[in-house]
Amino acid sequence: MRAVVMLSGGLDSATVAAMALDRGFEVSALSFDYGQRHRVELEAAVAVANSLGIIDHRTVAIDLRSIGGSALTGAIDVPKDEAGTEDAIPVTYVPARNTVFLAIALGMAEVVGARDLFFGANRLDYSGYPDCRPAFVEAFERLAHVATKAGVQGERFEVHAPLMHMTKAEIIKAGLALGVDYRLTHSCYDPAPSGLACGRCDACRLRRQGFETAGVPDPTRYRP
Amino acid sequence: MRAVVMLSGGLDSATVAAMALDRGFEVSALSFDYGQRHRVELEAAVAVANSLGIIDHRTVAIDLRSIGGSALTGAIDVPKDEAGTEDAIPVTYVPARNTVFLAIALGMAEVVGARDLFFGANRLDYSGYPDCRPAFVEAFERLAHVATKAGVQGERFEVHAPLMHMTKAEIIKAGLALGVDYRLTHSCYDPAPSGLACGRCDACRLRRQGFETAGVPDPTRYRP
Repeated sequence: MRAVVMLSGGLDSATVAAMALDRGFEVSALSFDYGQRHRVELEAAVAVANSLGIIDHRTVAIDLRSIGGSALTGAIDVPKDEAGTEDAIPVTYVPARNTVFLAIALGMAEVVGARDLFFGANRLDYSGYPDCRPAFVEAFERLAHVATKAGVQGERFEVHAPLMHMTKAEIIKAGLALGVDYRLTHSCYDPAPSGLACGRCDACRLRRQGFETAGVPDPTRYRP
Repeated sequence: MRAVVMLSGGLDSATVAAMALDRGFEVSALSFDYGQRHRVELEAAVAVANSLGIIDHRTVAIDLRSIGGSALTGAIDVPKDEAGTEDAIPVTYVPARNTVFLAIALGMAEVVGARDLFFGANRLDYSGYPDCRPAFVEAFERLAHVATKAGVQGERFEVHAPLMHMTKAEIIKAGLALGVDYRLTHSCYDPAPSGLACGRCDACRLRRQGFETAGVPDPTRYRP
């Protein structure tokens, strides 16, 4: 059976891809070139796909800068050294990003004959993003059944978010057990032109704390 | 109040834009450059937006050719002189296209502060497309409420599909009453390089029949 896995090149999605393979799926990986500041993650996605033996890896270009509204694609600065809270939605939130990405993954699933979609949504770490919650995943599944040729013909789509309730440390341990090479992954929202991580944005802080809590060495190359 | 209107440059979406303006909305128009064969419709979208006095008109580039699977973006030929049926989903169906487009419109709505989305889905003429049915529109609305910052904060999105139950002739009459200049619109899926309509694809046939049934002259420039 084939599954479409959204592969950003980050730690989470690399782990999700390894999980999908471990469950016996043939994986079609999907990455997005959406005008993100951290485009270096696209190279990481290619490296991760190669290291996992994923042959079908497509990158869809979509210029979300045209609609603006986020620190990840626009002129707003990426915040540093700030703790996220349950209530505040970070400025790095890209309006409707996961809705857009899952919609494209759904289209790709129809094309490659997959009925399973995997993505790295995580409730605990990214509680500030509305489109990383179980309610979002369920609503998207319901939409998939009425939005597609396959759904109308009675087939069921399943949206898997295996990391939903895991901590970053748990994700890292699970990935290491599956042989994920985290050196290849990229998490920083605001990397140096060389690709080195800033070590201070939300994504860097969560990643660093994850390795610390997991008690394993952090292979990330940080900016001096 | 502001609304986001998906404006393809075709007859239907031009009418929808006029309807949204007529209902008193300030309109932000959104077009998609998605690798369609009929890219000339993007020029039509600009002309339509200008003629209706819409100032905020954005075109989002998204390369759906990367996922393939449709006669509108891929190597499959656009069928000619064929009647569509209720059961058959046409090869011009682009997998999950309206899901992708509405998702981007939703992101734009968040950015511009709109809570109303308009699009030209039509059940009668395009019954073969799963993502043009009322069930799809309703499922998308439910998704919008859990997928977005605004939705989570308790605001409601409304997805308007005012053409849903209208015939092409009714749409044309409604548009003419609102002053839509259909000469500016483009419907053909497979136009000549000059932009002239083929007159034979599904879109041309529906459009031609619509003007005929409405009893008004068809301003379309067809290929000789």
